[in-house]
Amino acid sequence: MKKAIILLGCPESPSQTPLAIYATQKLTGIGYQVTVASTPSAKKLLEVSDPKEHYVQNKTDIESCLDGLEEGDYDFLLGFVAKDAAVSYFVTFYHILNTQSLALVFHRDQEKLEHFENAVRESTQADITSARAYHNPTPLRVRLDRALDKLIDPEPNKQDKKDNVDEPEKNPKLDEQEDS
Amino acid sequence: MKKAIILLGCPESPSQTPLAIYATQKLTGIGYQVTVASTPSAKKLLEVSDPKEHYVQNKTDIESCLDGLEEGDYDFLLGFVAKDAAVSYFVTFYHILNTQSLALVFHRDQEKLEHFENAVRESTQADITSARAYHNPTPLRVRLDRALDKLIDPEPNKQDKKDNVDEPEKNPKLDEQEDS
Repeated sequence: MKKAIILLGCPESPSQTPLAIYATQKLTGIGYQVTVASTPSAKKLLEVSDPKEHYVQNKTDIESCLDGLEEGDYDFLLGFVAKDAAVSYFVTFYHILNTQSLALVFHRDQEKLEHFENAVRESTQADITSARAYHNPTPLRVRLDRALDKLIDPEPNKQDKKDNVDEPEKNPKLDEQEDS
Repeated sequence: MKKAIILLGCPESPSQTPLAIYATQKLTGIGYQVTVASTPSAKKLLEVSDPKEHYVQNKTDIESCLDGLEEGDYDFLLGFVAKDAAVSYFVTFYHILNTQSLALVFHRDQEKLEHFENAVRESTQADITSARAYHNPTPLRVRLDRALDKLIDPEPNKQDKKDNVDEPEKNPKLDEQEDS
């Protein structure tokens, strides 16, 4: 079974925990065994948010996870990036795992958003998808859906045009339009 | 079956959605049919956070809910209070429903916390439980547990003193009636 790891930094945004659960559920649905590696407060929020572990079964501390991490441990890396510390975590995991990776960049502030996107882009070749998000998780949820759909069908060109809002790109900028 | 309603205002705090799910789960566990009435953004966060509706089956818009609300519709009211608008909602629902009620007051800022507590206290006889909460949901989760435990066992005095942080509750209202 393929393995995915989701990275969560400190949760400033009300959207982070809900989207982390959503992403876990979505990755599980397409056949990944998912581990969420997070800071202590992000972990507590996950636990409160999913008290019966219907969605997230594997949770680990991001620091201890990093200690033992090796290439090959995971097949897919999804990093939630909304702070500088989260950029550092993502970049570090990215270079150790050396596997398919997606940075989900979000912030309520447009400048911060661009700052984090650039920071990830300068240090990795990872896919990046981003949206302004704070209260309203929908723009980011839509981008995430689209990015994860590519994991299933990496060449979405044929009949995939239906929900294709700003589709064709395969790299860095899954955006440019719509939302918030 | 007894019915409970949970009120959610706009989600400023990363703790709100996780705790709303936690509270729903907890109330369901003690025999309530739970409805969550919320603002649109709070509802979207709930949907993303519980995509398969394992925890929250009944969601409604807080304004439309209010339109048709009558005394007797619900047996227990739990209001998440972290903004002035949420105080207003809680007070309004409280006076219409005229039933056992608990305000869960939270904010990262101590002054705001007291402001909201006072606002609720001035306008209702509801029970109030509060904690500073932002990233870390634990203090509020502990208070909520304690308050909800009283729904099951309305006279918790004996060995309950152990986890008593700053216990001495003000208006003992959350009791009187057990869930039968």
